[in-house]
Amino acid sequence: MSSNLTYADWIAVDWGTTHLRAWAMSADGTPRAEARSDDGMGRLARDAFEPALLALIEPWLGAGIMDVLACGMVGSRQGWAEAPYASVPTKPSELAPVPVATNDHRLRVWILPGLKQTAPPDVMRGEETQIAGFLAAAPGFDGVLCMPGTHAKWVQISAEEVVSFRTFMTGELFDLLAGHSVLRHSVAGEGTDDDAFREAVSETLSKPEMLAQRLFSIRAGQLLEGLSGQTARARLSGYLIGAELSAARPYWLGQDVVIAGAPALVHSYAMALATQGVTARTSDADPLTRLGLMRARSTLKESAS
Amino acid sequence: MSSNLTYADWIAVDWGTTHLRAWAMSADGTPRAEARSDDGMGRLARDAFEPALLALIEPWLGAGIMDVLACGMVGSRQGWAEAPYASVPTKPSELAPVPVATNDHRLRVWILPGLKQTAPPDVMRGEETQIAGFLAAAPGFDGVLCMPGTHAKWVQISAEEVVSFRTFMTGELFDLLAGHSVLRHSVAGEGTDDDAFREAVSETLSKPEMLAQRLFSIRAGQLLEGLSGQTARARLSGYLIGAELSAARPYWLGQDVVIAGAPALVHSYAMALATQGVTARTSDADPLTRLGLMRARSTLKESAS
Repeated sequence: MSSNLTYADWIAVDWGTTHLRAWAMSADGTPRAEARSDDGMGRLARDAFEPALLALIEPWLGAGIMDVLACGMVGSRQGWAEAPYASVPTKPSELAPVPVATNDHRLRVWILPGLKQTAPPDVMRGEETQIAGFLAAAPGFDGVLCMPGTHAKWVQISAEEVVSFRTFMTGELFDLLAGHSVLRHSVAGEGTDDDAFREAVSETLSKPEMLAQRLFSIRAGQLLEGLSGQTARARLSGYLIGAELSAARPYWLGQDVVIAGAPALVHSYAMALATQGVTARTSDADPLTRLGLMRARSTLKESAS
Repeated sequence: MSSNLTYADWIAVDWGTTHLRAWAMSADGTPRAEARSDDGMGRLARDAFEPALLALIEPWLGAGIMDVLACGMVGSRQGWAEAPYASVPTKPSELAPVPVATNDHRLRVWILPGLKQTAPPDVMRGEETQIAGFLAAAPGFDGVLCMPGTHAKWVQISAEEVVSFRTFMTGELFDLLAGHSVLRHSVAGEGTDDDAFREAVSETLSKPEMLAQRLFSIRAGQLLEGLSGQTARARLSGYLIGAELSAARPYWLGQDVVIAGAPALVHSYAMALATQGVTARTSDADPLTRLGLMRARSTLKESAS
C-alpha cells in the first residue's frame, strides 16, 4: 500500500483530562475525519495511552509512518509522557514538541509542552496550542485572548508572546454547583434566560463582595418564589462569570479582547462583557487547536530538513 | 413494664439531609444516650422515615407512649411530613410543632417548622430549633448568631425574635472543591495551617473581587511551588470563609456575635473574625438543638394541660 492511499497525512490530537479527540488531517490542515472517546488522561495508566489512541486512529493508518501531534493534559506528569512547562513570557509558536516512544512502529508521536507562570503561579496545557493557532491566523495581535471552559484562561499577548495569564475555575464550579450541590434541585439541565443572565453578571460586577450569599438565594428563590429552572441556570452562570470578570478586570478593561472557545460559552462571555460596554470578537476553539498543532508539525519538518 | 423503667423520658431528633441523630433524653433535658445513622432525608422515601427512626430508637422504647421531637429537613416537602415555614420576624420559642401520624402506636412524633424570609428570599430548617435553645439559655440576647456548616446561617436576633437571616453555601462549596474538583489533588484530607488560613481570610476581605482567581492558584501553587496539602486546605477554607464574611459584613461589623456549631468550625470562624478585630463568643451546637427541642416539648405539655 502506498502512503498516497493513506486516509490521513497526519493526525491532530486534543487530549484533556476527561476527553480524547483526534482528527485525520490533510497536509494543508483540513480535517478529513474526527473521532472522540472518553479516554481522558484522568482515567488512563501510563501504558494505556497508546492503546487508547490506536482505538481511535487505527482506521486512518496505512503501512507507512504516521505523525501524531498532541496537546493537553496528555503531557502532564500523570500523562503519557511529561512535556515540561515552558515559562512565560514565551512565543507559543516556538514551543518544541516532545517525542514520545511508542510500541507500534507506524506511530511517530509528539506532545506539545504547556506553559507556566511563576508570579502569580499559574499553569496551562492545551490552550498554548490554541494560542499558537490563533497567532498563526492573526499575526501581530496585541491584546487579550479569553478562553472559557472548565478552567477558563485570560491571556495577555504582545509581540507574538504570551506575556501573562490567569486561570479561573468557573466551568468546574458551574458543573459542581449545578450538578452536585443543593442547587441541582433548582437549576435546569439546559435552557437559559438572557435577561436574568445579564442582570446576574451586572449585580456581581457592581458588588463582587456579595457573591457568597447570591448562590443560596437561587435555591431560596425557587422554593419561595417559583424561580424557573432556566432562570436559575442563567443566574448561576451569570454570578460565576460575573465573579470571573470581576477578578479578570485588568484583562478586559480597555483591551482588545477575543473570546475563543465552544460556541455556546463564547456567546455567554460575549454577552457578559457587553454588559460592561466591551465588544469582544469571537472564535471557535477547535480550528485553533488544529492550526496550532499543524504549526508545531511544520517546525518539526523545518528542523528535520 | 412500667414507664418508669423506660430508658428515655422523651427522644430528641436532629434529622438533616444526610444524617439522622437521636438522643434518649431525661425529663430534665440531660441526654442519656445518643444514636446516629446515615439515613438522612435525602435518601428516604416517605414511608421509610418511620422504620429509619425505629432502627435507632427501638432500644429506648418501653410499653408506653414515647414523645419524639424532631427538627431539620425531615419537615421539608420531600421529608416525612411537611411542617410549613413560619415567616420572619418570628419568635423561635413560639413555633408550633406539627404532629406526624405513625404506624407504631408507641410513637408520638412532632416536627418543628423551619423559617422563611421573603426579602431577600431565604429559608432554614433545623437552625430555628438551635436558636430557640440558644435563647432559652440566653434570654434577652440582642445580636447576631453565626451558625457555620454545610449551609451557614447568620441570624439577627432582637427581642426574642429572629429579625432577619442569610444563608451561605460555604461548607458545601468547601466539600465540593476539596473533594471533587481539580483541587482534590492539592488539598489534604485533614490538618491545617493557621497562618495561611488567616492570611487567606484577610486577602479575601481586602479584595473580595479577586476570589475567582484565588481558587486555581491553590492548584498552581502546589504544582509549581510545592505548596503543602495542609496549607492548601487552610487557604481554601480561608478564601471561602473570607468570602462569606465579606458578604455578611453587616451581620458582624459592630455587632455582638455568638458562633454556634461544630467545635472545629466554630474555631475557624472565630479565628477569621479575629483577623477583623471582632471577638466572638462561641457555643457548641448540639446542646442547643436538644434544648430547643425540649423547649418545644414543654409548649406541647403546657397547651395540653
